[in-house]
Amino acid sequence: VSADADPIPRTVSWDAERPAVRLIDQRRLPGSLEFLDCRTVDEVCVAILGLAVRGAPALGATGAYGIALAAAVGEDVERAAAALVATRPTAVNLAWGVQRAVAAWSARGTGAARALAGGAAGALAEAERVADEDVACNRALGAAGAALLGDGARVLTHCNAGSLACVGYGTAVGVIRAAAEAGKGPRVWVDETRPVLQGARLTAWELDRLGIPATLVADVAAAGLMAAGEVDCVIVGADRVAANGDVANKVGTYGLAVLARHHGIPFYVAAPTSTIDLATPDGAAIVVEQRPAEEVTTIAGVRVAPDGVVARNPAFDVTPTSLVTALITEHGLATPPLRSFLSAT
Amino acid sequence: VSADADPIPRTVSWDAERPAVRLIDQRRLPGSLEFLDCRTVDEVCVAILGLAVRGAPALGATGAYGIALAAAVGEDVERAAAALVATRPTAVNLAWGVQRAVAAWSARGTGAARALAGGAAGALAEAERVADEDVACNRALGAAGAALLGDGARVLTHCNAGSLACVGYGTAVGVIRAAAEAGKGPRVWVDETRPVLQGARLTAWELDRLGIPATLVADVAAAGLMAAGEVDCVIVGADRVAANGDVANKVGTYGLAVLARHHGIPFYVAAPTSTIDLATPDGAAIVVEQRPAEEVTTIAGVRVAPDGVVARNPAFDVTPTSLVTALITEHGLATPPLRSFLSAT
Repeated sequence: VSADADPIPRTVSWDAERPAVRLIDQRRLPGSLEFLDCRTVDEVCVAILGLAVRGAPALGATGAYGIALAAAVGEDVERAAAALVATRPTAVNLAWGVQRAVAAWSARGTGAARALAGGAAGALAEAERVADEDVACNRALGAAGAALLGDGARVLTHCNAGSLACVGYGTAVGVIRAAAEAGKGPRVWVDETRPVLQGARLTAWELDRLGIPATLVADVAAAGLMAAGEVDCVIVGADRVAANGDVANKVGTYGLAVLARHHGIPFYVAAPTSTIDLATPDGAAIVVEQRPAEEVTTIAGVRVAPDGVVARNPAFDVTPTSLVTALITEHGLATPPLRSFLSAT
Repeated sequence: VSADADPIPRTVSWDAERPAVRLIDQRRLPGSLEFLDCRTVDEVCVAILGLAVRGAPALGATGAYGIALAAAVGEDVERAAAALVATRPTAVNLAWGVQRAVAAWSARGTGAARALAGGAAGALAEAERVADEDVACNRALGAAGAALLGDGARVLTHCNAGSLACVGYGTAVGVIRAAAEAGKGPRVWVDETRPVLQGARLTAWELDRLGIPATLVADVAAAGLMAAGEVDCVIVGADRVAANGDVANKVGTYGLAVLARHHGIPFYVAAPTSTIDLATPDGAAIVVEQRPAEEVTTIAGVRVAPDGVVARNPAFDVTPTSLVTALITEHGLATPPLRSFLSAT
């Protein structure tokens, strides 16, 4: 898909022949690298809901391609937009990607005039821009973040903020990757990231493909590693950054931020500026999605808890900006208030 | 086994007919309640190594019964003692239980004279005392701890410090149970406790049998619950308490202690005084057992991480005494230095 021989294919792309939104099916990883072709918006929604694709920047591109698909196959674009946005409430990029493609589609007029003027082509071109910009953005973000890492830095990361969470290259993993490309020889502690195990399944897989030394740990081991002086910094991604700098990210992120502060370890959030939502004043305004109890009570299809047990399964938590050492973006390090930062870029 | 109609059978008991050390096979829980009869010391060691039985107080009784078994079937008792103690390096109670039974056996003289004087009977009687004392001790500990809980307290616990970690009743769960028996209506957040899932598999099962309301969460959810004001206190058990009050317990305990301190939430350690090891001056002297990588890379027999990934799997971590609000023992709340506390009991 991309010409730069990336060892990891793009997470989201367009198959013009079908047409289809083509996704790496992340539920099959790390066992096998398979692609899922979605030929209707409903199929895209099901893929998002089932976590075949996840990660804020990847969802942005998926949303944009979903609109391109709706326009290409003649589905109702407004209905498609509503359905796509409703799948995951926390990731702001999803709505942002959808809106960009809808705007490009709308710009070609209305009704039959829009069809003649290439509304579908406009939506697709915008989706391709969203995707290409994501990769370029992550490379810039990675370079900015790599400057923060010393030689041989031991980085702890949580969940998957890698190529698979984006269209390509990655955000938190992008920083590590840029440090590796700069010859700094980073080493990574990979939190397995219960309940869905994105760290064990996806981040460990990416780092292996990239040849970056990584050690997998249960999430609960992070505190002991910090106490033993074996962690130089924590780098995570973000699903949404509020205007005041509060960060919503995979559940477990907030605990790591508290632990990092306790141990005097820098805690970095790597996120493109598209993740910043000025309409969300602070973390208290962020909707935290609750996911099915079965993600906790079963693992890989095997039931691990007694029948009938009640489980609580928040997908995200909120880290206050006071615990974030720096927000790494494609425009460099951002400091709150983020409205001013964005105006200046 | 016990006459008090406990809804949970004793974890460790003696089958005089075989003879055998009878264990609840905790690897079968929560799917089914099955017993494992060990008829040789090697079988006891294999059961301990395979986590059929675990938990510091349960290991103490298992060690004592293991010596009774060696004496009963004519195995070399000194060799049996060394083999049993070597199975798990962190739990001090294991060596303590073994030593009590060996001492009772030795007290009956040597050689043929010991056999005539009932060395085996002496070892068994001591093992039964270790087991009975454990249950009585946990009831006393539970009552002391329950006094710390308010009505409707929302208690977060980690791993399994319940009946299954002891001979019966439990330590951390014993406190919750005593509060329930006192009509205080406690509710419990159960950390699933990766990698071996003792919380999901064992603690959730016990609380269900006891009729105490419980909600299972992934370990990473604890911080968010604390931030949301949904946790009134944390109560955990201990595998070893050093003379200065530092606590070795299941990996993840230390992180919870840091989080509890950050949120101003009391952090209690419930442990019988047999868990206190005055020969260990502080946490730095505690050997932390490293367990197989497969506990992290596979779950319930299903591989979740890429082939060849490196994993670090410490079984325990160390919580400094400064983060422990109170150590709850069968003699009430203990404050360091624990040598003085133990002298006064």
